[in-house]
Amino acid sequence: MNKDVVVVGGGPAGLIAAVTAKSVNPDKSVCVIKAIGDGVIPCAIPYMVDTMDDPKKNVMGDMPLQNAGVDIVVDEAVGLDTETRELTLASGDTFTFDKLVLATGTEAVLPPIPGVDREGVYTIRKSMTDTVALRETFQSCRNVVIVGGGFIGAEFADELGDMDNLEVHLVELMSDLLPAAFDEEFCRDVRRRLEAKGIVVHTGVRVTAIEGDSHVDGVVLDDGVKLDADAVLVSIGAKPNVDLAVEGGLRLAGDGSIWVDDYMRTNVDGIFAVGDCAEKRDFFTRKPVPVWLASTATAEARVAGTNLYGIRVLRQIPGTISAFSTQINGVAFASAGMTCRASEREGFRYVCATAEAPDRHPGTLPGATPMKVKLVFADQSGILLGGQASGGPSVGELINVIAVAIQKKVTVRELDMMQIATHPLLGPSPTVHPLINAAHAALAKMRAAAGR
Amino acid sequence: MNKDVVVVGGGPAGLIAAVTAKSVNPDKSVCVIKAIGDGVIPCAIPYMVDTMDDPKKNVMGDMPLQNAGVDIVVDEAVGLDTETRELTLASGDTFTFDKLVLATGTEAVLPPIPGVDREGVYTIRKSMTDTVALRETFQSCRNVVIVGGGFIGAEFADELGDMDNLEVHLVELMSDLLPAAFDEEFCRDVRRRLEAKGIVVHTGVRVTAIEGDSHVDGVVLDDGVKLDADAVLVSIGAKPNVDLAVEGGLRLAGDGSIWVDDYMRTNVDGIFAVGDCAEKRDFFTRKPVPVWLASTATAEARVAGTNLYGIRVLRQIPGTISAFSTQINGVAFASAGMTCRASEREGFRYVCATAEAPDRHPGTLPGATPMKVKLVFADQSGILLGGQASGGPSVGELINVIAVAIQKKVTVRELDMMQIATHPLLGPSPTVHPLINAAHAALAKMRAAAGR
Repeated sequence: MNKDVVVVGGGPAGLIAAVTAKSVNPDKSVCVIKAIGDGVIPCAIPYMVDTMDDPKKNVMGDMPLQNAGVDIVVDEAVGLDTETRELTLASGDTFTFDKLVLATGTEAVLPPIPGVDREGVYTIRKSMTDTVALRETFQSCRNVVIVGGGFIGAEFADELGDMDNLEVHLVELMSDLLPAAFDEEFCRDVRRRLEAKGIVVHTGVRVTAIEGDSHVDGVVLDDGVKLDADAVLVSIGAKPNVDLAVEGGLRLAGDGSIWVDDYMRTNVDGIFAVGDCAEKRDFFTRKPVPVWLASTATAEARVAGTNLYGIRVLRQIPGTISAFSTQINGVAFASAGMTCRASEREGFRYVCATAEAPDRHPGTLPGATPMKVKLVFADQSGILLGGQASGGPSVGELINVIAVAIQKKVTVRELDMMQIATHPLLGPSPTVHPLINAAHAALAKMRAAAGR
Repeated sequence: MNKDVVVVGGGPAGLIAAVTAKSVNPDKSVCVIKAIGDGVIPCAIPYMVDTMDDPKKNVMGDMPLQNAGVDIVVDEAVGLDTETRELTLASGDTFTFDKLVLATGTEAVLPPIPGVDREGVYTIRKSMTDTVALRETFQSCRNVVIVGGGFIGAEFADELGDMDNLEVHLVELMSDLLPAAFDEEFCRDVRRRLEAKGIVVHTGVRVTAIEGDSHVDGVVLDDGVKLDADAVLVSIGAKPNVDLAVEGGLRLAGDGSIWVDDYMRTNVDGIFAVGDCAEKRDFFTRKPVPVWLASTATAEARVAGTNLYGIRVLRQIPGTISAFSTQINGVAFASAGMTCRASEREGFRYVCATAEAPDRHPGTLPGATPMKVKLVFADQSGILLGGQASGGPSVGELINVIAVAIQKKVTVRELDMMQIATHPLLGPSPTVHPLINAAHAALAKMRAAAGR
């Protein structure tokens, strides 16, 4: 079969690439080939365990593709010939294309631990069948060990902590949970909030073995502790799924992802890669970074989808700012750009400041929650390098104020003077808004350091 | 008595001007003269009626001033001699100053309606005594008429609508509620949500008389309707309080506010004006606009407070973007920059688009609420002129994403590509985030109009 545009991958990047391609080029035939027929919305997978009464509600539906006039093929692309511009599918079918977009995502990695292949050891798989089975497993467990304290591990721990009669241990090799996204004080707060709902958190320890007969029954840590386990969830990370790209001989980046230019073009004319399988570079350092976010992936997909047939609209990917958010024990945590520790590691001289205020004003209003904002600025130019926040649900959009400010290279002086909206029931007082006050406090530090 | 810096006014602008002045100039003596000894946080006044169990919790406290080392004098400044640099207070005391900051705010205006001076007709006054008395009045009423459907009127109607056995009528001269901040569809939604809680809304009608003996008993509209009323709240607007400025011979702007330059300096050396009493200019049109917001006032106060003794930090007020938010019947409404109707009125050629999605993803998650975003862009440059939003509480910070984008002159193409954070429990799906999708839809309209 022939299609003008073929997109491989049914996740958010593939979806948006296909929909954008069709909307920009309504006269072209566009097709999505996806390996999983019953896909779920990936970032909501943890909430299928308990928050959702019916996990089947978390469907990554085909409606947007169908509405856009994109064809859908459920099959796995296993072969790619860039000369003949032909894809081979697992079923044996072939597709020729004019333009190809790879949105093949990542696959979970398993650590080289004895026993990691035992029954009862799980990684996250993005089909309804797998996720519903995982829910059912957890519902019949008494002891669950989660290996890996990144976002997925912390969110599953939070979710499992809401279930009755379940003991949950979260094991992280680094000294903090979520160390890539937050500085120590926010990491400690995440830990404290998980512990408050009964999760046992182990940091700075390594899993040395997963024990049991055919089925897992325990996890051994390198400090000698042995944890009982009916199920183990491994969430230590993922790696780009580049099998098809390798098959086609596409150039890979140094970190094993698919090499792309700023317009998401691979080294082969007419072949693009977007989302988690494509190389990510940091906004400030330009170094490759393993940051896989649906928001970044969909932005990349829009670039590729628009520029398939010539770069008619001048756009580029400025590098990822790693804009994250999550909720732990009812408290929102979010981060964008560089933390203090990332700034130190990368050799950026910086000034940071933190401010806190109730998220309603006066703070005596019902429902008021503390909102905390930490901002990191380059110490000479005053350009905003990053921000971290915690508090009530409005933190989910507050981090996007910071995200836009980072992407627009806002300086500490501009932020100090920024006009923002506030309302008693919706946000902090304008006299103490943590976003403005953190900038104000950083500016005062800079002034003091300069003796002015 | 002599003080280096005297600030007249105890509202948010006076507070921040004084605290900033002292922090930037720790060696100077700073004093605030305020007429109201028991001030309340102004924007929370509506919520003292019912939402707060104890209205006394809404205190505009002196702590920030005291902590900063600012002296406080409760008295009214009634005379200003710019030659001798002397203020005269109502008590007869005098203060000489080196620098003076006027933050005298606004006073409510009363319409020239027969009976407007009857007992039982109220305007908003910002003292604890007055606001607690107003609460007690409403609690003993059966029929309240609110005249003026701006933010204060709509918020009081919403709040009074929560009280038992109270019939509330809201009367607005214009054809919509909140017409300055929103386009018709948002205004209609505000109206519908007020009506859903039993408020009777009258638009496009004028109050011709407030009737009664000594005490009000009714309100007559120009369509012949007569409404029963035990109390009438007049919230048709306010005017800058410039008595002291006039006394001192300061230059006024065309709209009767105090003339200031971009650094909040009046025409007299060493005398500044900030907040609602000072002239406001629109960010895009540069025309004077009667927009009085604590967030704008405090930003101006930071400029003045920093630049009292020479403009050591180059900063300026770029004009107000009118960033508002409110909550009506549990739904947040917010606006920043220009609406479509303002764009039309001012002759700006524009393209607008609206997008809507649940504020959690999947939308089947408990607590998901529709989030709606409308964006207005200049049709040639693509620069963001304004945005309006409605939805759950995160709209309170979402509008600040738009506010920062307006102030940084973000274009439709930049916004279409903006990296944002999303999380299932905290925001819309990255594939359909209304902020991005509204930009995307506007871009598609522009492309279609240009035939590309």
